Amino acid sequence: MNKNNYAIIMAGGIGSRFWPMSRTQRPKQFLDILGTGRTLLQSTYDRFEDFILNNNIYVITSEEYLDIVKEQLSNIPLENIIGEPERKNTAPCIAYIAQKLHLLNPNSNLIIAPSDHLISNQDTFRDACLQGLKFTEENNAFVTLGIEPTSPNTGYGYIKTILETEVENIFPVEKFTEKPNLEKAILYYREFNYFWNSGIFIWKSSDIIAAFEAYMPQLIQLFQAKKAQLNTPQEKKAIKSIYQKCPSVSIDYAIMEYAQNVYLIPAKFTWSDLGTWNSAWDNYSKDEYENASIGQNNTLIDSKGCMVHSSDKKLVVLGGMEDIIVVNTVDTLLICKRKNEQRIKDYLAKVNLERGLQYC
Amino acid sequence: MNKNNYAIIMAGGIGSRFWPMSRTQRPKQFLDILGTGRTLLQSTYDRFEDFILNNNIYVITSEEYLDIVKEQLSNIPLENIIGEPERKNTAPCIAYIAQKLHLLNPNSNLIIAPSDHLISNQDTFRDACLQGLKFTEENNAFVTLGIEPTSPNTGYGYIKTILETEVENIFPVEKFTEKPNLEKAILYYREFNYFWNSGIFIWKSSDIIAAFEAYMPQLIQLFQAKKAQLNTPQEKKAIKSIYQKCPSVSIDYAIMEYAQNVYLIPAKFTWSDLGTWNSAWDNYSKDEYENASIGQNNTLIDSKGCMVHSSDKKLVVLGGMEDIIVVNTVDTLLICKRKNEQRIKDYLAKVNLERGLQYC
Repeated sequence: MNKNNYAIIMAGGIGSRFWPMSRTQRPKQFLDILGTGRTLLQSTYDRFEDFILNNNIYVITSEEYLDIVKEQLSNIPLENIIGEPERKNTAPCIAYIAQKLHLLNPNSNLIIAPSDHLISNQDTFRDACLQGLKFTEENNAFVTLGIEPTSPNTGYGYIKTILETEVENIFPVEKFTEKPNLEKAILYYREFNYFWNSGIFIWKSSDIIAAFEAYMPQLIQLFQAKKAQLNTPQEKKAIKSIYQKCPSVSIDYAIMEYAQNVYLIPAKFTWSDLGTWNSAWDNYSKDEYENASIGQNNTLIDSKGCMVHSSDKKLVVLGGMEDIIVVNTVDTLLICKRKNEQRIKDYLAKVNLERGLQYC
Repeated sequence: MNKNNYAIIMAGGIGSRFWPMSRTQRPKQFLDILGTGRTLLQSTYDRFEDFILNNNIYVITSEEYLDIVKEQLSNIPLENIIGEPERKNTAPCIAYIAQKLHLLNPNSNLIIAPSDHLISNQDTFRDACLQGLKFTEENNAFVTLGIEPTSPNTGYGYIKTILETEVENIFPVEKFTEKPNLEKAILYYREFNYFWNSGIFIWKSSDIIAAFEAYMPQLIQLFQAKKAQLNTPQEKKAIKSIYQKCPSVSIDYAIMEYAQNVYLIPAKFTWSDLGTWNSAWDNYSKDEYENASIGQNNTLIDSKGCMVHSSDKKLVVLGGMEDIIVVNTVDTLLICKRKNEQRIKDYLAKVNLERGLQYC
């Protein structure tokens, strides 16, 4: 394996659309949402471990989750598990890790990926990553893995590419677009050159630092001013003071929308951001009546299109129900319609208001 | 209080339509279905205790429930709590208790009532019972309390009366009818002389024994042949052998459909047989959206017409649901549509088949 290649897994999200399974104390990435025996974070690690040296796999998360990450990923060095003192979106996180790794290895070549996505077809995933790493190693380039849209989904950002290319399967990006309205999403979906933004990026630390210097110099300078403390026992204290000054901004908005030399590799693997219970439902195996039933002790009778996830031992019986979500955790039971899954955040807010933070 | 008056509470039912709250191990009558702080059995006892001597209140139940009854009704003498060795419907049960009490007191005058009904307006209930007891004391008569129909319900037997009467508020019965189809139920409902059969009967032990001798002699003779054992330590053994020979038959079918001198007192009290979750829903206090929510920790959002009964501490959240039943017990969760409440028995049968008897 190439010792310059690094994987950085971002594991700081809250995942409130998966409430009540996902909780502030233990969000989605730390759960075995799909019932595979591995949490989403562990599955993400497993994918990289296949082609990235174990010592080169890093996880960046909120400080409050450090213990969970250490527990779930006991194979990687402790110093590779990094806590952020505040949630400041992806740009500060990427500036931090890029600067830190660049000091350790000026030739470091990074894949940055969310911790909570579903990816099948490991061989295809590995090939796409290795192709990207080779391309960024040899070029001053920013690569993103793009997902071919399977619906006019308004929940994703879209990336417009130029289909003429000099390198097979690597297409120049024309522009990043934010989450579109349905009208625009339908237009994008009909074209062949639009892809969903997977949030998986590949670039050399030197190139992304240069991009920060060009497009967001005040942010990268915060980290550069404390270079002497990075990778030392003083790092934690330095980061705490830096993060207080960081704006909260996404890498897409800070860098990708302005950067030149951005390329997209279309993903051939099966991908889901598992953003909602419906996307989980899409990815579960279902019975002949389109019910996805996860749990040891569920009995569905005359029911169809239901999504049942039960993580305690209770017997769960659905009789004659259609298109509902049932999530049964050790202390909370949620029942709602699948079409209302976007309202789960509102339900959580109402519970929060009525009963305090204990259920969040 | 009149020392010849007795109350017999029949508490042997299984109540499977209230599953999963009602369980074979602890059926409906032993539960506080309405959240009043008293079980249905205890409430039935409370009603009689108001006008029947404590020593004259008897409970007849399945042997397996003897301990529950003793625990729930610690005030009545232990020998007043009687176990049946088998479920043989109401006729053997009534023949048994009538013969037993007749030996103790040849002038005994009995009210026989189910243990699992809801009755409000205690004063009205007491007045109806005392009027019936006075009437049967003075006459060779069989009295039943009838309920004025509030809907063309097909779940009840109907009693047709003759509205010309010599005694105020006590009407001669023309005939008992079995549960009708909807067409007939609508006809009965439109007439003024049809009443629901409440299953509450009043008669002297001497009169009902005579009726058994006339219409079902082989049954009463089983008990009369063992007179010497009744009210002695040999009673239990004698009853076991008698019950093996008893047919399983209801008092309505065995006696009431044939007996002369049957009268009906229309109940002015509020009554429900609490036969199903919908009838419970009818009797609960509901919010402005017609939701009945029983439990410490339920949050209903944008939901209407729902029946939620939760008896553990779990937070139960319904979002945007309509007309469903949610029953959450310590080991089972049932979710079905209110209109499918009659299918709960089928759901239980399916669970039984798939997962064994532990949830029944």
